[in-house]
Amino acid sequence: MIYLDNAATEGAKPASVQSAVLAAMRVCANPGRSGHRLSIAQSTQVLACRNLLSELFDGYGYERVVFTRSCTEALNLAILGTLKEGDHAVCTALEHNSVLRPLEHLRRTRGVTYDVVPLENGHVNADMVASFVLPNTKLAAVTTASNVTGEVVDLAAVRKALPDRVLLLADGAQGAGHVPISMREAGVDALAVAGHKGMHAMQGAAALLFSERMEIEPVLFGGTGSESFNLGMPAFYPDRLEAGTLSYPAICSLFEGALIVKARMREGAENLLRLTAALSEGIRSIPAVVPYFSPNPCGIAAFRHEKYSSEEVAGMLSDRFDIAVRGGLHCAPLAHRALGTFPDGLVRASFSSSQTLREVNALLAALRRL
Amino acid sequence: MIYLDNAATEGAKPASVQSAVLAAMRVCANPGRSGHRLSIAQSTQVLACRNLLSELFDGYGYERVVFTRSCTEALNLAILGTLKEGDHAVCTALEHNSVLRPLEHLRRTRGVTYDVVPLENGHVNADMVASFVLPNTKLAAVTTASNVTGEVVDLAAVRKALPDRVLLLADGAQGAGHVPISMREAGVDALAVAGHKGMHAMQGAAALLFSERMEIEPVLFGGTGSESFNLGMPAFYPDRLEAGTLSYPAICSLFEGALIVKARMREGAENLLRLTAALSEGIRSIPAVVPYFSPNPCGIAAFRHEKYSSEEVAGMLSDRFDIAVRGGLHCAPLAHRALGTFPDGLVRASFSSSQTLREVNALLAALRRL
Repeated sequence: MIYLDNAATEGAKPASVQSAVLAAMRVCANPGRSGHRLSIAQSTQVLACRNLLSELFDGYGYERVVFTRSCTEALNLAILGTLKEGDHAVCTALEHNSVLRPLEHLRRTRGVTYDVVPLENGHVNADMVASFVLPNTKLAAVTTASNVTGEVVDLAAVRKALPDRVLLLADGAQGAGHVPISMREAGVDALAVAGHKGMHAMQGAAALLFSERMEIEPVLFGGTGSESFNLGMPAFYPDRLEAGTLSYPAICSLFEGALIVKARMREGAENLLRLTAALSEGIRSIPAVVPYFSPNPCGIAAFRHEKYSSEEVAGMLSDRFDIAVRGGLHCAPLAHRALGTFPDGLVRASFSSSQTLREVNALLAALRRL
Repeated sequence: MIYLDNAATEGAKPASVQSAVLAAMRVCANPGRSGHRLSIAQSTQVLACRNLLSELFDGYGYERVVFTRSCTEALNLAILGTLKEGDHAVCTALEHNSVLRPLEHLRRTRGVTYDVVPLENGHVNADMVASFVLPNTKLAAVTTASNVTGEVVDLAAVRKALPDRVLLLADGAQGAGHVPISMREAGVDALAVAGHKGMHAMQGAAALLFSERMEIEPVLFGGTGSESFNLGMPAFYPDRLEAGTLSYPAICSLFEGALIVKARMREGAENLLRLTAALSEGIRSIPAVVPYFSPNPCGIAAFRHEKYSSEEVAGMLSDRFDIAVRGGLHCAPLAHRALGTFPDGLVRASFSSSQTLREVNALLAALRRL
């Protein structure tokens, strides 16, 4: 199958990632839970992964790197753990349900209010984001890149437009591993990272990085291997936010993936820019296909077909041409409303950094024959 | 290293588990997120795992099997998602911090009260559990087996003693994979399963199974690949409780582990009973070592040394004899208070079902030489 659904999850993990996971299943121990040699060795590796992520995203040190199962969990932690009754938040229309649904939950149950900032000609405008800030606005949630259009958001510009007191949460689901993200330079207070997309790790690997301005309350409660006598969660990070056994294999996969990103992100992004540019160029000659993307380093290309629904196109590409893409709303309903593609959605083809023009051409050939 | 810390995590995963995880990293897709052939194939495998777990634990069908990162997360879901202001809960002194800390959180923040039922001569007494039930008691949380002593709790007796209206939540962290658990026969309303201990799966694999009497509110919010237009979580299970990308490799590992449990749990449990019996017998001839366990099918054996603290013994066993055990409180502070071993804790040796008398004898030899 020609797999063009890498924005849902990268289609195949690199060899070093596979090997690290395998090694972690052959000799297991529970990091941070015992004092014997193996447990300590694995704790050291977990710490190395925290340090590597903090370095890669110019974060705030290993204590402020919390491992989660998914980018969704990381976003929940940042949103549910920060906003209290009476607080206000802003987010953009590009945000995923992993931001919208926690905010909506807080609105319904905890007396938190929020505004969704509309797009300007399909783009996030920093000044418009700032214009929605109220005296009680505590948090602005802005994606690093749209999972529908691949558009990369200028976080530094958003930060500059926002009052200093407003915390900036960045959803790195699509941006991390594809575009450089410097938390300190861009003034990002919290960054949610998905492991299994641009970061090359397995599903189940993700992290939240956060600044010294963030104080996050736990969302999950349980054993941390520290202060076992304490019926409350420990007061210190990362333990405060990491109840329960960590997925050590997932963390090992994230470490290896992050090493690859550190070494090769630039080439990968250039390749994805080239592939999406070639697709954009090729689509121009297919009158029935309407593109909703510009060339981008996240490798995302959404389009619609004038004759068929997005799910029909995705189904035909899978059944007749053995090509995997994703139709529908991509868990980003407000982005589709803003683009005028609600409720049918779009067809999204998404490339991995190791794919080539061969995959682009196969998709174009199939689209021509629909 | 002689690894006797299997109650923290099983020391090495079976070959079939390793292979399944590897396969899931070689050809990836996101189950439930797209309509193409690969995604559907993986959704089918996820469904097969739900069905297998429901069958293994005599549960309530695939819709009521929710995948989580850890048993801790599963317990949180059952506790935080069920108890509301004014509710009361009971738990036993054997419970882990993964039960105690969520209850304590609810007490501090949500007006929930709870009582910890003391042990009777170190054991859970069903009638004593029932004696703590109040008119507003909604939930009783009882472990399937103690992570300190290995004691297996008679859940059916607890259920029988409890009023029908009280929901019974069983912590399967140590029991699942070692002892038969039939949710319907024992009247268990919710069972939290750790994948990476007796179930042979990787860390990051876990599940919550629950009955038709349980209505659980979500704790995490985000994309489910369903009802993307809805800013609330879908109303139907399992989607309602599964925000964010699932760890497909972890689920594949749990499927393979569950197959092994289905085929070989009885032999494994008999072996663990034999190993803990041999250790118990051997310890009798070492005057300085005081056992706190009976032979049990969970493979858990806790003891203390009259001359050294539990952490000192664990350290010496690791450094001088290359044996991995766990000292301290094992995230079960109230169990140690009940046993009179707080705050020093105990040394816990825990076996896997594939270990042999060789490991028992190595531990005994080391203990004799301390």
